[in-house]
Amino acid sequence: MERMKDRASDVEVLVGVNPVLEQLRTTPATVRRIFVASTAHGGARKVVEAANTARVPVVVEEPRRLARRAAGHVHQGVVAEIEPYRYLGWYDLLDLRPACVAALDQVTDPRNLGAILRVADAAGVGALIVLEHRAAGITPVAARAAAGAAATVPVARVTNLTRALVELRDAGYGIVGLDAGGEENLFGFRFPDPCVIVVGSEGRGLRPLVRGTCDFRVAVPMQGAVSSLNVSVAAAVTFYERMRQRQIVDTPSRGC
Amino acid sequence: MERMKDRASDVEVLVGVNPVLEQLRTTPATVRRIFVASTAHGGARKVVEAANTARVPVVVEEPRRLARRAAGHVHQGVVAEIEPYRYLGWYDLLDLRPACVAALDQVTDPRNLGAILRVADAAGVGALIVLEHRAAGITPVAARAAAGAAATVPVARVTNLTRALVELRDAGYGIVGLDAGGEENLFGFRFPDPCVIVVGSEGRGLRPLVRGTCDFRVAVPMQGAVSSLNVSVAAAVTFYERMRQRQIVDTPSRGC
Repeated sequence: MERMKDRASDVEVLVGVNPVLEQLRTTPATVRRIFVASTAHGGARKVVEAANTARVPVVVEEPRRLARRAAGHVHQGVVAEIEPYRYLGWYDLLDLRPACVAALDQVTDPRNLGAILRVADAAGVGALIVLEHRAAGITPVAARAAAGAAATVPVARVTNLTRALVELRDAGYGIVGLDAGGEENLFGFRFPDPCVIVVGSEGRGLRPLVRGTCDFRVAVPMQGAVSSLNVSVAAAVTFYERMRQRQIVDTPSRGC
Repeated sequence: MERMKDRASDVEVLVGVNPVLEQLRTTPATVRRIFVASTAHGGARKVVEAANTARVPVVVEEPRRLARRAAGHVHQGVVAEIEPYRYLGWYDLLDLRPACVAALDQVTDPRNLGAILRVADAAGVGALIVLEHRAAGITPVAARAAAGAAATVPVARVTNLTRALVELRDAGYGIVGLDAGGEENLFGFRFPDPCVIVVGSEGRGLRPLVRGTCDFRVAVPMQGAVSSLNVSVAAAVTFYERMRQRQIVDTPSRGC
């Protein structure tokens, strides 16, 4: 584990040369302070240079205190204090009222979550909903895969996805589940506005209760011999098909 | 490096417990023989079980010979002989004449290559072209990311992509380059038939000479703050847009 919650001070801690360098490179504003062992050399020097460039304070510490900050993890002489990711509150999501929300049902691979965030940003999906338990959260791995989109697409966390979907439907959203066995073909389907696109887990798709809560179950068509798409690719194709439909409505001369 | 070419016998060698287990799980037919150290235990036993299930011959060898097969790599008591990946010959590609070919210009990450193969299979792209040098080939990492599609979508290798594209154009193909700065918007563009979709490298896109060889330069539209899409996601969205256009032509009642 490269990131830990420091309960005492509501700060997260990132350890090791490469994770800290990456954080400085992609989201320097999230790095509060960097601690470097007084005995450090090599990779730690690169971190100090990058911190100076990013104007992040660097504190030199004796190895024993640094080891305590790293809580037993291999730190290579480098520990960073970073801002904990701030999830969007549920009511703030309802207030924000994005035209399209993506809800992830038990997506557990942080790289898939990051890839979905990145394409959500590109394809006009205004917010994400993830599960609080048994699902990937916005860890540094996810943020790295998001290539900056973790800072631009807000993410809300819920404990009960079905209840969240029912509330969004009551707020006027059409609930669209991505489902390999769904009765609608993505390319024959017209997306409701506003809509929630529900994406299932990597191996098992949507849970039955979640599937049952969807107003529409849409399948991404597949021609080949391989029986499934990567979850972030299926999400990308779906987000973009919705975007295409809206562009055609906006600029009818481009449509058919 | 987990795979090496054994020049003497035109066979590739895969070393280590997990790579060999994965190969047995995904493409058992490619595994010719497995060598296990006479002193092996633990993980190697799992490999023997999996090999028995897949009916792959297992040979017990003394550690010194096994180490020679592994050519100095960490083998954990397990070495497998696997069929070298058979690339499609150039003239076989021209004979095959798929309605859509994807050409990758210096895509170097084997996981991106694998992801592109997987979605090519799903979206009706009939073959891939990759560069022989400075590009990812069909390694076990790529094959794993392809989730089976390395066995269903043939891949040809060329040394000069520009020349290959010119030859395909002479054979009647329209050459479509994916280019973030392209003058055509993906959603206003009609794909020629047959077509080659040219996908650039992860960081730099298409090389100028390759870009210049394209008949069309098409941009995947982006609304958000993040300036790029992952190369496999951009390819996926493009492959699927072409598939959508063909489905609408095939079943006009679904179109608009």
